[in-house]
Amino acid sequence: MRNEIMSSPERLRENLAQVLELLETFHHEEALRAAGDPSEPKPSVHNSLPDLRDRLSRMHTADVAQVLESLPLDDRLLAWRQVRDQRGGDILLEVSEAVRSNLLAQISEEELRLAVGQLDADDLVDIADEIPAELLQERLLTLPDDERRWLQSSMAYAEGTIGSLMSNEMVAVRDHLTLDEVLSYLRNLSELPIHTDKIFVVDKRGVLRGVVALQTLLLTGPNKHLSEVMATDVVTFTPDENGDDAAQAFERYDLISAPVLNDRGKLIGRLTVDVMMDLVREESSEEVLNFAGLRGEEDLFSSVWNSARNRWLWLSVNLLTAFVASRVIGMFEGTIAHLVALASLMPIVASIGGNTGNQTTALVIRTLTLGQISASNTFHMLRKEIIVSLLNGVILGLIVSMFAYALYHDPHLSVVFAGALILNLLVAALVGIGVPLMLQKLGQDPALGSSVLLTATTDSMGFFIFLGLATLFLL
Amino acid sequence: MRNEIMSSPERLRENLAQVLELLETFHHEEALRAAGDPSEPKPSVHNSLPDLRDRLSRMHTADVAQVLESLPLDDRLLAWRQVRDQRGGDILLEVSEAVRSNLLAQISEEELRLAVGQLDADDLVDIADEIPAELLQERLLTLPDDERRWLQSSMAYAEGTIGSLMSNEMVAVRDHLTLDEVLSYLRNLSELPIHTDKIFVVDKRGVLRGVVALQTLLLTGPNKHLSEVMATDVVTFTPDENGDDAAQAFERYDLISAPVLNDRGKLIGRLTVDVMMDLVREESSEEVLNFAGLRGEEDLFSSVWNSARNRWLWLSVNLLTAFVASRVIGMFEGTIAHLVALASLMPIVASIGGNTGNQTTALVIRTLTLGQISASNTFHMLRKEIIVSLLNGVILGLIVSMFAYALYHDPHLSVVFAGALILNLLVAALVGIGVPLMLQKLGQDPALGSSVLLTATTDSMGFFIFLGLATLFLL
Repeated sequence: MRNEIMSSPERLRENLAQVLELLETFHHEEALRAAGDPSEPKPSVHNSLPDLRDRLSRMHTADVAQVLESLPLDDRLLAWRQVRDQRGGDILLEVSEAVRSNLLAQISEEELRLAVGQLDADDLVDIADEIPAELLQERLLTLPDDERRWLQSSMAYAEGTIGSLMSNEMVAVRDHLTLDEVLSYLRNLSELPIHTDKIFVVDKRGVLRGVVALQTLLLTGPNKHLSEVMATDVVTFTPDENGDDAAQAFERYDLISAPVLNDRGKLIGRLTVDVMMDLVREESSEEVLNFAGLRGEEDLFSSVWNSARNRWLWLSVNLLTAFVASRVIGMFEGTIAHLVALASLMPIVASIGGNTGNQTTALVIRTLTLGQISASNTFHMLRKEIIVSLLNGVILGLIVSMFAYALYHDPHLSVVFAGALILNLLVAALVGIGVPLMLQKLGQDPALGSSVLLTATTDSMGFFIFLGLATLFLL
Repeated sequence: MRNEIMSSPERLRENLAQVLELLETFHHEEALRAAGDPSEPKPSVHNSLPDLRDRLSRMHTADVAQVLESLPLDDRLLAWRQVRDQRGGDILLEVSEAVRSNLLAQISEEELRLAVGQLDADDLVDIADEIPAELLQERLLTLPDDERRWLQSSMAYAEGTIGSLMSNEMVAVRDHLTLDEVLSYLRNLSELPIHTDKIFVVDKRGVLRGVVALQTLLLTGPNKHLSEVMATDVVTFTPDENGDDAAQAFERYDLISAPVLNDRGKLIGRLTVDVMMDLVREESSEEVLNFAGLRGEEDLFSSVWNSARNRWLWLSVNLLTAFVASRVIGMFEGTIAHLVALASLMPIVASIGGNTGNQTTALVIRTLTLGQISASNTFHMLRKEIIVSLLNGVILGLIVSMFAYALYHDPHLSVVFAGALILNLLVAALVGIGVPLMLQKLGQDPALGSSVLLTATTDSMGFFIFLGLATLFLL
């Protein structure tokens, strides 16, 4: 059995290695051709570009996209140009947004027009806001009426809503048909859209009446009526709902495809599991990046300037909060000058506070993402986190106070140190729960910079509590 | 159209609210029944338990599981007991691992036996290592021979491998059949396994020869032979491969199901998209938790003791590294006593280093997860991160040195401060790339505690660089 498509990461590495080698050979050949006296006849040098084109043409579109993402900007463009004529548009669709924006900036208007011409309405929706408006208009005019109308209405839905994620490729049949009639209708189509596990049954106004699974069509005798065999308890969606909620429903109810209805129950589109799976992957990648204080995914090869900008938002927040923490310490410079041991102990209070708070925040973010937070269990969670942090605080407090005593032989200092740690762990628990809940209430992603906000608080409060207690009790 | 199953999170909240209300009413009734003189005849109090049972019985299994996850331990057990007789086993399968382990600890052996009896071999594999060995053996004896053999061989595969994730529910037919013969075979089955988008074609030794999509069966005339219509370029997997790699292949090639073959090409199982989607979700949730220094998912209502333990591993690492950072400062106590401003400025160096390093680490983890790291681009990435951190360092260094000058009017201090910040950002870039790459090389999840390890280094090195430079140049 032939198996050109393979799953293993080894295969992907192999693809990449082959492409890199062909590119290197090509650059070497270019150098040879450029060398020598321009007036003399060029030496005949083998050209590896056709080999590269051939290699790429045998790869799956998704694999080509992955290879492009791992190439430096120039080579990426060169490789894209080898597949441009047949699959340029599809590959632009497949690469990550960061990589696409770099490619779009490099290709000529003519190339973009060619690529856009290869995409149908369903694909165009996904990148409509990334291509120049005139070019999109130009392409719109060449689309059939129904596709154009569909594209225009889809573009009106906000990013991340079901309306922006649904497809217009689906099979819908009228409810008065027999299975036999449906089968001959399907045979006339010659091909069903990808991920068709069921067909939709509508009445004459286009209102969804039920669905029939392909397997029902296969396993049932052809003389029955659709209305006898269709399922009517269907998971349906509306275009304004959130895509993430739909992804959770797909997971929960093990769906492959589902109908999208407008508020009068009319069938207007279809959601499929591949789009939902991409969404889950994307959402999860953003969660880690947001948690760490980045705005979004970065192209591995994007310019230094773009990368620096991606990081600046939260770095400036961090800069401000660091100044605040520094001024908190500044308030107590007299105390530190008096007892310099405080300077070496205070980062322990801040650091352990930051880490326990990060643990709490990560758990709260997970719970929020899974939709498991209600009014009754927020209180329960808060109580548990406070008890856990008290427990951890007492144990950690004991250990750190022994550490401080071993170094400085000052029992009062040790007690103040342990007390400050316990208090800062309480602060960490409260803030660790509060920050993501607050971000969620503000309509933001609960992971958005929560680590930066949290450590800002546990740093400042840690210094304040420790140095404050020291000023009160040790001077 | 009836729509009992709904997607919206509002509906889930509604489910939970109704269950909570019924539970509260029930507890109230219990209190009434318990009140009064035990010798007197009991007052007749309505019993809400049947209402609760009725409400739960109308909910989808996945929704019941979600409600259970949001209930405190006692109520969770009470609710599970209402659905135990029909769906106890399915619901145990559906809840998160943390919640399942709490439920398993609470239910009686008899209840567990009942629940286990409701599961078939395919489901048993998923929880085989969580139920007592004797009970599993007892259940094994009641399974048909082929299911028992399949279960035993599946249990031998390591967790997370494809072998442990594959199912034995699939349709395989011999390669000499006509489509007509296949159709009558399918009609005899009366039902196909969930997520059957294609059937597998095997030769007489069970070796996979190709696959036929259900839509091909539907759309093609019945007189053709399987060998004429089957596809032979199939994405296949082997049982020892990593499940995460399979999930990426499912995403990349938009698969619904795929065959699993042993090393002789024999069909031994099937992977389906629902399992892959769960894997992606699970992996992503672990990524954030691991990044923040937690061992794994926590039951919202697990005991304080279990929660504290989940956090201790990385907290103790953090404790040790905080001690190291503290001793680094301790080495320079003389310097600080001489110039106390250093104490208030040094956390800025540490904090900004930690944040930029976390950004780098999060990006590297993403790139590793997507399999985009090769020998050639590791170097490229390292070079870019160093340039970005130099750029950020110069800008941030300028700002912080102005801040320091405004406070302390000491130009030498300001220069040392800016220099220390630039150097610590370089350390952050190197360590931010190095930590996840090292964890990956060690065969660990690259996210595992990387935030803890990273901030440990940027703290200690930040203090060391700043106080060291200050000792050299300012005293």
